[in-house]
Amino acid sequence: MNSLKQLIRDIPDFPKKGIIFKDITPLLQNPNGLKKITEKISEHYKDKNIDLIAGAEARGFIIGAAVAHKLGIGFIPIRKPGNLPYKTASITYQLEYGTDALEMHKDAVKPGQHILMVDDLLATGGTMAASCRLVESMKGNIVGCAFVIELTFLNGRKALHGYDVFSLIQY
Amino acid sequence: MNSLKQLIRDIPDFPKKGIIFKDITPLLQNPNGLKKITEKISEHYKDKNIDLIAGAEARGFIIGAAVAHKLGIGFIPIRKPGNLPYKTASITYQLEYGTDALEMHKDAVKPGQHILMVDDLLATGGTMAASCRLVESMKGNIVGCAFVIELTFLNGRKALHGYDVFSLIQY
Repeated sequence: MNSLKQLIRDIPDFPKKGIIFKDITPLLQNPNGLKKITEKISEHYKDKNIDLIAGAEARGFIIGAAVAHKLGIGFIPIRKPGNLPYKTASITYQLEYGTDALEMHKDAVKPGQHILMVDDLLATGGTMAASCRLVESMKGNIVGCAFVIELTFLNGRKALHGYDVFSLIQY
Repeated sequence: MNSLKQLIRDIPDFPKKGIIFKDITPLLQNPNGLKKITEKISEHYKDKNIDLIAGAEARGFIIGAAVAHKLGIGFIPIRKPGNLPYKTASITYQLEYGTDALEMHKDAVKPGQHILMVDDLLATGGTMAASCRLVESMKGNIVGCAFVIELTFLNGRKALHGYDVFSLIQY
């Protein structure tokens, strides 16, 4: 995955001082970049009978929709509160300071469906863990959590204990 | 496109009273739905030498990324202010009450590249017109503006005069 790493840009002090943000926009705008990440994730899960991809806004929509298209299945958006128009299920989760919340349409998942969770980046895993609990509250089965990038020093796999975690690029 | 229309849900009074929101989430979560809209848009533009797809957050990311994957090209995210980490170009545009703004990375488009703009819905066309001006400020050539849904009674094509406008479903 070294060729992919070359398409990821370090942005110091974003979104706040002391954080080095991994910018995947050069990877996404590269035709081989978007293609390669989509194919690698799809390849890993192609025999797992996945029914649906779920991804959280906003970057999770990009990776998730491309993987859903590649696998020939549908996509479920997980959104910040107030953005989904129909009846929603909601989950509140802890941040470093304060809380955040995510929503999903109540009819997005049917009981027993196999759901692959997709996002661009695994950091502390808080958003993904909350997304998984949201899907499970609707009786969906989480087949795995797939990421383009994993920041291993933040130990996000701990928050996702019990799930199959897959990442293409590690730092 | 009647089969697609059956997968779109009317939500009265969202996001505010008097508006009937066209909810495409049932379409996106249907495997044939996401596949069909992606293929129809890609088919329309496949011989136009498109270099990149651009889409505005958040629903534009879903449709745009799927089309980019289908066409084997890259994707550029257009975002609300403060969400992009690198140097940005910005545009402010008029809403019914007040203004809004959109940003794009300054290195997202190279002069002369052929860009296909993609979004889920054409209403008044304000967001798309601003997105086009943003791409043109970086000397990109707009090949077309593609939408899943067009609300023809809002006459969004007027705001997009001079561009090739393509929509799959009309109301």
